[in-house]
Amino acid sequence: MQTLIIVAHPQLAESSTQQFLRQGANLADATWRPLQAPFTLATEQAKLLSAERIIWQFPLYWYSAPAILKSWQDQVLTSEFALRQQSLAGKELGIVVTTDTKASAYQSGAAEQFTLAELLRPYQALANKLGLRWLPPFAIHQFKYQTEIQQQQLLIDYQQYLTLPQPATFEQRQQWFEQRLQQMTTRAPAMQKETLQLLGEQLATNRDNLAELRWTVEQMREDE
Amino acid sequence: MQTLIIVAHPQLAESSTQQFLRQGANLADATWRPLQAPFTLATEQAKLLSAERIIWQFPLYWYSAPAILKSWQDQVLTSEFALRQQSLAGKELGIVVTTDTKASAYQSGAAEQFTLAELLRPYQALANKLGLRWLPPFAIHQFKYQTEIQQQQLLIDYQQYLTLPQPATFEQRQQWFEQRLQQMTTRAPAMQKETLQLLGEQLATNRDNLAELRWTVEQMREDE
Repeated sequence: MQTLIIVAHPQLAESSTQQFLRQGANLADATWRPLQAPFTLATEQAKLLSAERIIWQFPLYWYSAPAILKSWQDQVLTSEFALRQQSLAGKELGIVVTTDTKASAYQSGAAEQFTLAELLRPYQALANKLGLRWLPPFAIHQFKYQTEIQQQQLLIDYQQYLTLPQPATFEQRQQWFEQRLQQMTTRAPAMQKETLQLLGEQLATNRDNLAELRWTVEQMREDE
Repeated sequence: MQTLIIVAHPQLAESSTQQFLRQGANLADATWRPLQAPFTLATEQAKLLSAERIIWQFPLYWYSAPAILKSWQDQVLTSEFALRQQSLAGKELGIVVTTDTKASAYQSGAAEQFTLAELLRPYQALANKLGLRWLPPFAIHQFKYQTEIQQQQLLIDYQQYLTLPQPATFEQRQQWFEQRLQQMTTRAPAMQKETLQLLGEQLATNRDNLAELRWTVEQMREDE
């Protein structure tokens, strides 16, 4: 699956969060595309057509994307292209949104009063109108305050958000890990190879055990 | 009360709806201010400071304002001005939004899936953050299909939205009419003056009758 990541950020180079995500987006099946005006309609529309999953990635400025994304929407998503031809129907739309505010502030009664799901309704309505499948938004809160381990976990979640079917099953996430491990093993220096291989075998065994357990549970249910 | 109408429309001169509203906004206590980039921060912020009610007026493009309003927000509403100084706290924020879509399309299950109130949440969240009192949005659906009488009614509603306390009581709306009638009477040619005066007296009598009726009802309640 080809994923197009449209990044809307006025100071992209200075954003440590975006630079971190950029490393994560360095995948064979993902294209990193920062927005920069002016836009060439034909190029932008062709990029959209070649993608199966479209991601709008931005920091939340005044409860919405920075102006450049709206500018891009107003210009590129013409009525002819987006509505009459329904050119994007059947594709997926995901939002990767970063905020400096903690997650718990986004609820009724808290500082921001509304959930992110509520604040992102205009994008959801747009997806609905264009026949795009709306993915659950991917929110990153206070990246700077995250520990290194939290950031590593974030990177994995982000990569899975970009490329796995959404919502991803436990098995799909597990397989994704195994594939990544295999790739790492191939590229690893000799002295690490054995450890990685053992880790891979352990993961595979876990998966087999889990599948067996699930089968047993199903049998028990049938017997009842 | 001073009302600042910030109009965000990429083709303002060509919009018959906006030109129509512009006539209505020709009031002593309202300022019509179309957005045009680039913005001078000091000028924009001074304009905001001198207003008691701020209106953002725009056609709904992709379930949000045209990009120029977001661009203005991102630039003019600096953290220093809008958050740390809370410069706009205590003022009011109203939205005048026009759409080509009929009102009934904005609900769950209908074509647009969400209500306008839901789609305008980002502006409501912004009002909340800045300490602005959020007014019920003023929506204009399919202006072109409205009859002349509907449009005249719209103009009155619009003018009242701009200048009356919100929500306006029946008495406030009535008084507003009487004031307008007095102004018209003063400026009218002699042969119309008498008719307008009679109409004014009729309105005043109605109001007195209504006040009397209300007083009677209150008395009856007290007697119970």
